[in-house]
Amino acid sequence: MQPFRIHVLGCGSALPTLRHNPTSQIVELRGKMFMIDCGEGTQLQLRRSRIRFTKLGHVFLSHLHGDHCFGLIGMISTFGMLGRTAPLHIYAHHDFEPVLRSMMDFFCTGLEYEVVFHPTDCGREEIIYEDRSMTVTAFPLDHRIPCCGFLFREKPSRRHINRNMIDFYKVPLSQINNIREGMDWVMPDGTVIPNERLTLPPDPVRSYAYCSDTRYMPELHNIVNGVSMLYHESTYGDDNEANACKYYHSTAAQAARVACEAKVGKLLLGHYSARYDNENLLLKEARAVFPDTQLAMENNIYDIV
Amino acid sequence: MQPFRIHVLGCGSALPTLRHNPTSQIVELRGKMFMIDCGEGTQLQLRRSRIRFTKLGHVFLSHLHGDHCFGLIGMISTFGMLGRTAPLHIYAHHDFEPVLRSMMDFFCTGLEYEVVFHPTDCGREEIIYEDRSMTVTAFPLDHRIPCCGFLFREKPSRRHINRNMIDFYKVPLSQINNIREGMDWVMPDGTVIPNERLTLPPDPVRSYAYCSDTRYMPELHNIVNGVSMLYHESTYGDDNEANACKYYHSTAAQAARVACEAKVGKLLLGHYSARYDNENLLLKEARAVFPDTQLAMENNIYDIV
Repeated sequence: MQPFRIHVLGCGSALPTLRHNPTSQIVELRGKMFMIDCGEGTQLQLRRSRIRFTKLGHVFLSHLHGDHCFGLIGMISTFGMLGRTAPLHIYAHHDFEPVLRSMMDFFCTGLEYEVVFHPTDCGREEIIYEDRSMTVTAFPLDHRIPCCGFLFREKPSRRHINRNMIDFYKVPLSQINNIREGMDWVMPDGTVIPNERLTLPPDPVRSYAYCSDTRYMPELHNIVNGVSMLYHESTYGDDNEANACKYYHSTAAQAARVACEAKVGKLLLGHYSARYDNENLLLKEARAVFPDTQLAMENNIYDIV
Repeated sequence: MQPFRIHVLGCGSALPTLRHNPTSQIVELRGKMFMIDCGEGTQLQLRRSRIRFTKLGHVFLSHLHGDHCFGLIGMISTFGMLGRTAPLHIYAHHDFEPVLRSMMDFFCTGLEYEVVFHPTDCGREEIIYEDRSMTVTAFPLDHRIPCCGFLFREKPSRRHINRNMIDFYKVPLSQINNIREGMDWVMPDGTVIPNERLTLPPDPVRSYAYCSDTRYMPELHNIVNGVSMLYHESTYGDDNEANACKYYHSTAAQAARVACEAKVGKLLLGHYSARYDNENLLLKEARAVFPDTQLAMENNIYDIV
């Protein structure tokens, strides 16, 4: 199976700490790298991850709070100094384009690559990126300012050739592509061998949903239903449920509740408040609701299966 | 003597590396903290230094390349979240004010402290800050865009009371302040004791000059003449003297030449190109010209004596 994994570059929240970088992740899917959010210092974390800068073509910003986007201008500038020529696609709320352009005009003159801005409408669910093998859907979250979640979903792949059956029925090589496309095989004596006998089921479709920043949303499970992995912010523990509501964030237990309601494969917590010296309390509270929960940590990689 | 020291937060150059943070320093003088430059990630380095954020009242930006100022907006935003109420004074090229204001309008609504912008004219030498005990003078450097160096200089302090002589001549306590102000003491029998006999020399005036980014400037020694410590950028070694000239930077040997010509106390090198895996070569080349040279390193503190 092609790798589908999350490189966590930062999982802190608004106040910077020495324990956590502000939010950023790389979604690696079939050799492509997609960045979600880009807090201050992200370019250094990207360097630390050893992901080649040239592999990164798309940056999705969930919303325009500084801890999710202050690192973008520095990264754009550095890519320029490194001689990038491939376009860089930025997906963000439309209000951001003039701000970004004015910063770039001031600080990034002479860039030899194009920064292509794709305004996102955080008000409704929509596919904002699509290629041969996957889609990215943006969907609204419930934060103080317009904020998007992102759902990365593989497209169903074709069934796999079953080499043993191909040999057994002596299917000529010239027919392999047809079989792969779903055709049956008609033997010289007229016997029809159904495609299902000549092939193995395709890889299961994997998906990843990113939800930060947001209040607990009772209806969110409809959108992220059945995803292989859900990243859901858990800024607070139960001790701060009132703050979670007040500041439009979630508790770990609320994140787990969404995971449970959506019947996801795994839950990844993040966006921890600076008040927690360690996040084991958050992990414990989430696991009480949804056992298959992990804490996101900087420089860790999480495989989606 | 009151502390006068430099906390190096970052001494890398334009391309970020895992070895060096982009440029930022804190000048600590008599309990006040002044920041020079504020590259991306500076607020985290400031946190690492354990300097209290509230102690910082003034930020001086040498020039408007990203590696010297991309960290400012994040720091301003964080100070707001931490409930700062004291004004923060920013000294920078006048072109920066509209850019900064538009970023602040977008990202820092509801700040409860004032950001006071002081436009600097990098075209001539001028005192841009003064208080009871010190001055900060900006002076032009030779870079691709307008760029200032900064000279921090203590004001001469008063002579110290010589307790032994005061006792010996039985000077009454009521006269101590007059003696401190420089008056002589007239004994009851009419004998005049000159002030120099009753006092000890004042502390020597200390000074610190910061020069980054700049080409070698043959006339620079006139401005930084005799400073206690000179920080001079040394982006390159002798192997890249042509690049230094081309990109308006200096070699370590050129930095040392300025130190030598200006007869400074100590030389501190910094702003190292990402191409050097370690800077000992730069140190060696500088020391061949000016022996009392040190390499600036992140999280180190350099006392000015």
